Amino acid sequence: MVGVLFVGLNGAVANTVITGINSNISFKDNTFLPPTIDNDYTEEELKSFGSIIKTEYFKGIDFIDESEFIIGGWDIFYENAFNMAKYHKIIPFEYYYKSQSKLEKIYPIKGLVNFWDSNEAIGSEYSIKMSSLKTFKEAVDIVRKNIDNFRRSYNLDNIIVVYLALPLKMIRKLDELYDLSYEDLNKIDPNYLPSSCAYAIGSILEGCPFIDFTPNLTLSIPFIEDLSIKYNVPLAGMDGNTGQTLLKTLIAPMLKLRNFKLIGWYSTNILGNNDGKILSRSEHRELKIEDKLSVLEPILGYSDFEHVVEINYYKPRYDNKEAWDNIDFMGYLGLPMSFKINWLGRDSILAAPLVIDLVKHLDFAKRNGFKGIQEQLAIYFKHPLKSRYNNILKELDLPIKTYKDKLVLSFFDAFNLLYSFYKRNVKAKK
Amino acid sequence: MVGVLFVGLNGAVANTVITGINSNISFKDNTFLPPTIDNDYTEEELKSFGSIIKTEYFKGIDFIDESEFIIGGWDIFYENAFNMAKYHKIIPFEYYYKSQSKLEKIYPIKGLVNFWDSNEAIGSEYSIKMSSLKTFKEAVDIVRKNIDNFRRSYNLDNIIVVYLALPLKMIRKLDELYDLSYEDLNKIDPNYLPSSCAYAIGSILEGCPFIDFTPNLTLSIPFIEDLSIKYNVPLAGMDGNTGQTLLKTLIAPMLKLRNFKLIGWYSTNILGNNDGKILSRSEHRELKIEDKLSVLEPILGYSDFEHVVEINYYKPRYDNKEAWDNIDFMGYLGLPMSFKINWLGRDSILAAPLVIDLVKHLDFAKRNGFKGIQEQLAIYFKHPLKSRYNNILKELDLPIKTYKDKLVLSFFDAFNLLYSFYKRNVKAKK
Amino acid sequence: MVGVLFVGLNGAVANTVITGINSNISFKDNTFLPPTIDNDYTEEELKSFGSIIKTEYFKGIDFIDESEFIIGGWDIFYENAFNMAKYHKIIPFEYYYKSQSKLEKIYPIKGLVNFWDSNEAIGSEYSIKMSSLKTFKEAVDIVRKNIDNFRRSYNLDNIIVVYLALPLKMIRKLDELYDLSYEDLNKIDPNYLPSSCAYAIGSILEGCPFIDFTPNLTLSIPFIEDLSIKYNVPLAGMDGNTGQTLLKTLIAPMLKLRNFKLIGWYSTNILGNNDGKILSRSEHRELKIEDKLSVLEPILGYSDFEHVVEINYYKPRYDNKEAWDNIDFMGYLGLPMSFKINWLGRDSILAAPLVIDLVKHLDFAKRNGFKGIQEQLAIYFKHPLKSRYNNILKELDLPIKTYKDKLVLSFFDAFNLLYSFYKRNVKAKK
Amino acid sequence: MVGVLFVGLNGAVANTVITGINSNISFKDNTFLPPTIDNDYTEEELKSFGSIIKTEYFKGIDFIDESEFIIGGWDIFYENAFNMAKYHKIIPFEYYYKSQSKLEKIYPIKGLVNFWDSNEAIGSEYSIKMSSLKTFKEAVDIVRKNIDNFRRSYNLDNIIVVYLALPLKMIRKLDELYDLSYEDLNKIDPNYLPSSCAYAIGSILEGCPFIDFTPNLTLSIPFIEDLSIKYNVPLAGMDGNTGQTLLKTLIAPMLKLRNFKLIGWYSTNILGNNDGKILSRSEHRELKIEDKLSVLEPILGYSDFEHVVEINYYKPRYDNKEAWDNIDFMGYLGLPMSFKINWLGRDSILAAPLVIDLVKHLDFAKRNGFKGIQEQLAIYFKHPLKSRYNNILKELDLPIKTYKDKLVLSFFDAFNLLYSFYKRNVKAKK
Repeated sequence: MVGVLFVGLNGAVANTVITGINSNISFKDNTFLPPTIDNDYTEEELKSFGSIIKTEYFKGIDFIDESEFIIGGWDIFYENAFNMAKYHKIIPFEYYYKSQSKLEKIYPIKGLVNFWDSNEAIGSEYSIKMSSLKTFKEAVDIVRKNIDNFRRSYNLDNIIVVYLALPLKMIRKLDELYDLSYEDLNKIDPNYLPSSCAYAIGSILEGCPFIDFTPNLTLSIPFIEDLSIKYNVPLAGMDGNTGQTLLKTLIAPMLKLRNFKLIGWYSTNILGNNDGKILSRSEHRELKIEDKLSVLEPILGYSDFEHVVEINYYKPRYDNKEAWDNIDFMGYLGLPMSFKINWLGRDSILAAPLVIDLVKHLDFAKRNGFKGIQEQLAIYFKHPLKSRYNNILKELDLPIKTYKDKLVLSFFDAFNLLYSFYKRNVKAKK
Repeated sequence: MVGVLFVGLNGAVANTVITGINSNISFKDNTFLPPTIDNDYTEEELKSFGSIIKTEYFKGIDFIDESEFIIGGWDIFYENAFNMAKYHKIIPFEYYYKSQSKLEKIYPIKGLVNFWDSNEAIGSEYSIKMSSLKTFKEAVDIVRKNIDNFRRSYNLDNIIVVYLALPLKMIRKLDELYDLSYEDLNKIDPNYLPSSCAYAIGSILEGCPFIDFTPNLTLSIPFIEDLSIKYNVPLAGMDGNTGQTLLKTLIAPMLKLRNFKLIGWYSTNILGNNDGKILSRSEHRELKIEDKLSVLEPILGYSDFEHVVEINYYKPRYDNKEAWDNIDFMGYLGLPMSFKINWLGRDSILAAPLVIDLVKHLDFAKRNGFKGIQEQLAIYFKHPLKSRYNNILKELDLPIKTYKDKLVLSFFDAFNLLYSFYKRNVKAKK
Repeated sequence: MVGVLFVGLNGAVANTVITGINSNISFKDNTFLPPTIDNDYTEEELKSFGSIIKTEYFKGIDFIDESEFIIGGWDIFYENAFNMAKYHKIIPFEYYYKSQSKLEKIYPIKGLVNFWDSNEAIGSEYSIKMSSLKTFKEAVDIVRKNIDNFRRSYNLDNIIVVYLALPLKMIRKLDELYDLSYEDLNKIDPNYLPSSCAYAIGSILEGCPFIDFTPNLTLSIPFIEDLSIKYNVPLAGMDGNTGQTLLKTLIAPMLKLRNFKLIGWYSTNILGNNDGKILSRSEHRELKIEDKLSVLEPILGYSDFEHVVEINYYKPRYDNKEAWDNIDFMGYLGLPMSFKINWLGRDSILAAPLVIDLVKHLDFAKRNGFKGIQEQLAIYFKHPLKSRYNNILKELDLPIKTYKDKLVLSFFDAFNLLYSFYKRNVKAKK
Repeated sequence: MVGVLFVGLNGAVANTVITGINSNISFKDNTFLPPTIDNDYTEEELKSFGSIIKTEYFKGIDFIDESEFIIGGWDIFYENAFNMAKYHKIIPFEYYYKSQSKLEKIYPIKGLVNFWDSNEAIGSEYSIKMSSLKTFKEAVDIVRKNIDNFRRSYNLDNIIVVYLALPLKMIRKLDELYDLSYEDLNKIDPNYLPSSCAYAIGSILEGCPFIDFTPNLTLSIPFIEDLSIKYNVPLAGMDGNTGQTLLKTLIAPMLKLRNFKLIGWYSTNILGNNDGKILSRSEHRELKIEDKLSVLEPILGYSDFEHVVEINYYKPRYDNKEAWDNIDFMGYLGLPMSFKINWLGRDSILAAPLVIDLVKHLDFAKRNGFKGIQEQLAIYFKHPLKSRYNNILKELDLPIKTYKDKLVLSFFDAFNLLYSFYKRNVKAKK
């Protein structure tokens, strides 16, 4: 068994993971299945879709199975997983209603909030206001205690912590943080760093792998990766790569290789879930937009094109994130052409299997002695972090470029990186 | 100088090549340029867009330049290149009107037609009706003589023949052709094989590289490749890969690697040029549709999905081919998602730089002793032919799969194949 | 109470009507509602959406309420309404599962089939093969007996028959039918007319209003309307106007009034229900396509434009009919512009409230002495039939044009026609 | 002859009007025409497209012809009409190059700018800075003098002034302006009112009809309409209705009559002309967005839906304004459906014939004694102004609703208003 603690347990993604794992999709008499060419997919197949680990390319690697996850986590909204699933309406009721009693037992630990959280979070009654603490270190200690309690309750060896909370406000002072050290935590104000750092640092100190699936800067702060090296903890981040950016890392390299000159890329997103609501506020949106914007230039190798990314909160879409992209390029003689992509996705359905995969990757990494930022997981992220200790890339001898603090990869190169990593390490072990 | 003979000289693609090469796009006072981020692209840059050879990846290879092309060809419509450019309306008039006198001198040689050509072609006055000949061999001899005349007129060493004529009717008896031999040409009826074969065989016998940019079966007939080996002639084909299929070879591998289960792909095309008119007839459409349909299954490795491809003649689009694709897939728990791509391309603007590239590749191949089907050129074709003598792939040791008579490649693998070929051969030479 | 007999009881539309009327959508704790701006719509409001009768414009008219419908009908597939609802997956299970016992009692009467029905229908075991009867009249008598039994079972005064069966094959000989008379039914072969005529004639002879919601030619046969005049029965048809054609009757008049010259309209439809499957066969598609094609020319007043309509069976869409329309027009100086509409509808959800409305309109008509084709109902149909006895239009003095056997109306004129009819008749009564 | 003075003579719309009127589109040998079904439209037909006046519905009314326009105007960019046409690239060069010498003579009068103009305008050297004047009245006098000079130069009776300048900044104090009177102009600061008011007031005092085709508040200021009544001058405004809003006034009434409950309408616009650049700044965008937003609620009669309108400056589109609309609605049982419209328009090509129409309407109005805001012209505007003296509507006895200071009309009602106005007045005259 492996423990999985979500920061944001009651959010759409974590709840989809929990409810998905606890779904029963029987077939003989099931009339609720989405209409497909034929209805004889097995439950195992249906639960495999969207997972990279479950393709034929990663067979034979000793990943843990999600049936062995013991799930818990923090939230600032006190409700059980069953009622949250009904609220989120992401998974059909028929899939999980038989697990009602199990799901009703899953309640969150009280979450930490400080200045950088959304106003809704700050206003929540079910939260620990970090401003009431003396130092940031105290917040870290609370996280450590929560983790330790969970470990003892279920008698767990390994626990992975996944950060899935709503986007924080932009940290405007990342530059200052480059010199921050672990020792400073005892001195700094509890609002100095975002609450996400308390979770990350607490996890590392407890020896727990930590995944940042959000656009926050947590794992970009140098001393945090340093700490993970010291404590032998693998990390992964940041900003899960689900839809629009995935398509950008697919299409931009094609434009380059086919010598189509990009002249403009207009992207608009409409979504109606809480993520969309928070992202519609400029102070929360900046980092996300930056992640989305910074993907084209390093791949193309030039910057004289228009790139617009809009994110709109639009309630009728709910969790079904929709995107419309307009790609304008010049062909022979400079004549303009374009294509438009209308993406009708399901945000949490796309994210959930990636989160499950990442838990397994970090469990594997931890068991096999890897530490620091795991760059081989770049395919999972919009902003794949570059490690300051990148032994993995060096060993694989792949010609991967970097751009600021991120790896620059086409979708296929990112896949090859992951594939090569396991090919080498699984072989090595045998 | 290198000779370039187009079968279909007055068609949209060949005319775009000729007119494009003869375009003058001056910049200081040019107000006709398409609106771009900034208007300071050089003429050289604008003429490079859409060409794979002109990316940074193929620098330093001694390709011939298109300024050294001497262009001629066959057609069944007698008109000069200037008037055809005005008719086709593909390139802005301002780009080429200064080359009027040069373009007005380019007229086609009389083309061959037989049973497999479109009814319009068969009805043309400016054509050689093969049915009036005694054997198929006589048609081949006419082609040889035409080539020889062209060679002598311009005192050329190397001539590349590019087949760009309108789609032929389906050959319903390809199976029978597997045992056909060159010697049979003296006996068979001039309608037994399509006119395209007369061009291909004539070219090979004259030592001229031959490119099939159309969905016809010409180069799939075994004895034709055999002949090219014997006469040391490189070949390339088939069916130029411009828009919709290019996107399929890009997206389908992503679906596979991300474990999105494809449940349906609906593709419709609307175009209003002559190609569209001919393709709207079922007997001419079959091969094209087959090429378009056969691209997904071998990449994905399964076939339980719907795949519909429609081609509609729709005059308001003219040469601006538009496609609408609807891609339906299942994600986690089998929940359906989709995305739609609306492609607003320019058919001949996409094709022209590929044709120019291919001429250069075959000129390179000829000069460097390559013969038979040049598999390294797979990226250029919807239906990249597999050679029966595939030494290239063997040498490069790439794990490329095949499917019936074609290579199965994602867009990126196809690019790597081309890149590796030149890396190896240019290195080897030095 | 009013009886409602559906031909095609187990089809998607009839089943949606039955299941919809029997849905319970409670609000206080309902978590299954589609996400809307606010979730406090009442059940009554939610059941009113899509119904023209339930707008503010038809208040105060004594329509019967659907709670007073007693529903039955014919089908060639023997299953109850509850299992059919689970099969069709059109209405969320949560809405109707509390009505299970009621729905499980609704089974169809055995349907009539003959040469013009689809091969699936002809092959069904649960059917009366008309070819085994001696004359067409015998089929009519079976329908009459079925209706009479239903009337007696529920002690009903008025019964409305609604034809919702799958599209029939084209009748290639409509011209011959102009001289057919009722008396001929005793002589003609049971395959001479489609089975739909047996239902229509049987209904009329039993005094029951008849609605044709399909693209079949039933009500275009002159003696059938004659019969309805003789027997004082109102009729309505044909081919329900749900999505794409509705938009055409909205947009085409705008193009005309704004002087935008239409140069092309390309429409493609993808749908995956049984309707789509049958319509994908050319012999069943012709009438539907004709209805869809004939809507533009009479509105615009010219015909020099391209008009393409495609219907594709595409299973991943199921009942969610999707359409993509491409409208090309010239503006000032002939410069081309276009717009594209991507319609993501739900076929039966659109049709069901129209069917409910039509039953109420014909019940009103019957009670108020109207007979023959009810032209005021034009807004409900793609092919609004012109009556050969059109007293209604004459009385309203509306300048409505006709085109072959149909009324030509913009969407707004069609609405005004309906509105004026009731304004006049309800006033008249008082 | 009638004089036409444009404020914004060198802008895209005014230049398109001038260049369009001076285009020669010959047919026999013209190869530059947009590809259409057949190429035998006459020049007269091609110049009629997009004009409401030139439909069959307004035949026989004595409108002036555009060949009788004498065109001039103000701008803050000093260049002639020929060079501007080359810069704007809206009309194909082939259409107007024969009119070079005529177009090269058209240069603007120096324009007025003050605080409310865009920063580019304020920075222009070719402008009269109103801040250097003593009172607002002085600016009005300059306009009067300009008009008078133009009148004398061409010996004109009637001059129509059309305001087509770039969007001004929002006037934040419209409420204060309700009590402003003409006499105050002598006292107020030249920055108190926007420069557009100087043009409007100057025109009125000179007896010239004035059209506001922009979203500015000019004609909403009460004393300005008062003045027009006093001086017998007809006015028209505001904010030309070209694309997206036109579709809204078409679709929203259909949603209402078909009882589809609107739950959200997301509209995004991308355009790359100067209008787009200015509108991308929030202070200039507010009024435009307000006009676009306020169209749905009054038509639908409810406001519980999401309505988002985005305007993005996106240079690759240039003058070809593109819009993407997403319309979400509930059908039967509250089930959600949607449709999306992708509008590929040409901003100035849509606007130009409307401007030409409006000049003719105001010329007709002036000649026939109409004064004040001409409400019958509502179809031309996104924000059709309500007159404080609306005798026209009263006379026509149409049940037109109002909403704040605008008329609320479906597209078809707006057409009927125009049609009825002329039917009545032309009849009356005879």
